[in-house]
Amino acid sequence: MSKVFTLKRQVEFNHCDPAGIVFYPRYFEMISALVERFFGDAVGTSWAQMLQTGDGMGTPTGSIDMRFRAPSKLGDWLEFSLAVTRIGTSSASFDLKCSSEGETRFEGSTTVVYVDTSTSKSTPWPAPLRTEMSAYLISPTT
Amino acid sequence: MSKVFTLKRQVEFNHCDPAGIVFYPRYFEMISALVERFFGDAVGTSWAQMLQTGDGMGTPTGSIDMRFRAPSKLGDWLEFSLAVTRIGTSSASFDLKCSSEGETRFEGSTTVVYVDTSTSKSTPWPAPLRTEMSAYLISPTT
Amino acid sequence: MSKVFTLKRQVEFNHCDPAGIVFYPRYFEMISALVERFFGDAVGTSWAQMLQTGDGMGTPTGSIDMRFRAPSKLGDWLEFSLAVTRIGTSSASFDLKCSSEGETRFEGSTTVVYVDTSTSKSTPWPAPLRTEMSAYLISPTT
Amino acid sequence: MSKVFTLKRQVEFNHCDPAGIVFYPRYFEMISALVERFFGDAVGTSWAQMLQTGDGMGTPTGSIDMRFRAPSKLGDWLEFSLAVTRIGTSSASFDLKCSSEGETRFEGSTTVVYVDTSTSKSTPWPAPLRTEMSAYLISPTT
Repeated sequence: MSKVFTLKRQVEFNHCDPAGIVFYPRYFEMISALVERFFGDAVGTSWAQMLQTGDGMGTPTGSIDMRFRAPSKLGDWLEFSLAVTRIGTSSASFDLKCSSEGETRFEGSTTVVYVDTSTSKSTPWPAPLRTEMSAYLISPTT
Repeated sequence: MSKVFTLKRQVEFNHCDPAGIVFYPRYFEMISALVERFFGDAVGTSWAQMLQTGDGMGTPTGSIDMRFRAPSKLGDWLEFSLAVTRIGTSSASFDLKCSSEGETRFEGSTTVVYVDTSTSKSTPWPAPLRTEMSAYLISPTT
Repeated sequence: MSKVFTLKRQVEFNHCDPAGIVFYPRYFEMISALVERFFGDAVGTSWAQMLQTGDGMGTPTGSIDMRFRAPSKLGDWLEFSLAVTRIGTSSASFDLKCSSEGETRFEGSTTVVYVDTSTSKSTPWPAPLRTEMSAYLISPTT
Repeated sequence: MSKVFTLKRQVEFNHCDPAGIVFYPRYFEMISALVERFFGDAVGTSWAQMLQTGDGMGTPTGSIDMRFRAPSKLGDWLEFSLAVTRIGTSSASFDLKCSSEGETRFEGSTTVVYVDTSTSKSTPWPAPLRTEMSAYLISPTT
């Protein structure tokens, strides 16, 4: 039985645009923070710790696609979820979803790559990271 | 012969992360600014003007997908391009590309929807917007 | 005995610059969120509620001054505090401080003004806001 | 006769808040970009070049104070100016002003410190930086 990593967050004034709804680049900041917390809290190796590994390791984003279903307003409580759909040699793919009171706000997927940030070269996941991520791995057809 | 809308912009300190490269949510701010300039400068109807139309019109993002090819560093000059691939009744799709000195940094596509921001309901494009956008319409197979 | 409004927050990757420390404009986003939470949680009238009052009320910043004492790093837990130093007819001044494990990171003060956002005209504080803010009023010489 | 460093910039959608005006933390991003351009274009040593000097030099902000005079709206053209008011051993103070069509939007001052970013220790300005900055030095009483 796989686990899903979740996070709740309230829409702040600084996230909203002149139309009164969340400006979508702010969603990508929230998504980045979700992935950051996933590595720090669920996988157990924070980005700060990765940056102090070797010449500085990191998990930059290789690709991301999102579909926005409904706007979010100031004060809304958003629930984010992250599930792992694939763990490759040096990359991993996540399904991401954001909803509020049962309504989907946006959903999509992203792929991150484990790289040496000094050279931008991909590097195989260390075994402990792979093991911890596996607990969140779902079969894509589930 | 269709036109391509382009914009040049230099990577600033505020775009960069602790790994010294552009933090990808900042790319989405740049993409938003590219689309904003496309409507203001190429289509001839700025988002400020749209917001003063009726109860407030806008072009929120329906979906976006990007593939990041190579990192960008502080001081790099980025060249952004936008081409229109589809104009629907009340939506439009764009191909987006960002490169620096001939190297692709990221590329992808997005769909925006013309909506009444007070109700979030989609609305057919006014004829002048449709006409101006058409000058940038490419055949998807080109 | 006056109260002090406090908030804890961890430094995220998106707050940090290429030198690996918090980029100071991100501190101002955090300060704005602190003031936002003060009105929503302590005063009991959120900015979302203010925007729905009359033609749209708000508390824009009239002035702000900050002195940065020590840098903050990725992963640091920051403790923010806000105390009210003055409540005028339609403005209020706050002392702000941010520290981490007993070390001051920055401190300063700000003045906000209660305004009608449709005209930018200042307006006297409603009695309930004034009353709630008073619980956090310190004498400046304390 | 001292010089003043100026920059023009248009208010974009991403700078504006639900009240339709520039969200003040965005002003601090613009101020940071102004100081960044001052070092890169006027002083002739960009922040990217500083970061590659020694163990990584930089000019973090020691203090900043701003007074906001009038709101800025989407599409406004803002004119920023920077004048040097003091050059110390390892710090410098600037007067900053932002106006639009003759109306002051905000004004204030900031002090930056030349530091080794790996240790956060202040370091005397190299002679070339001091010389170039001096061209923008005004007498405080002017």
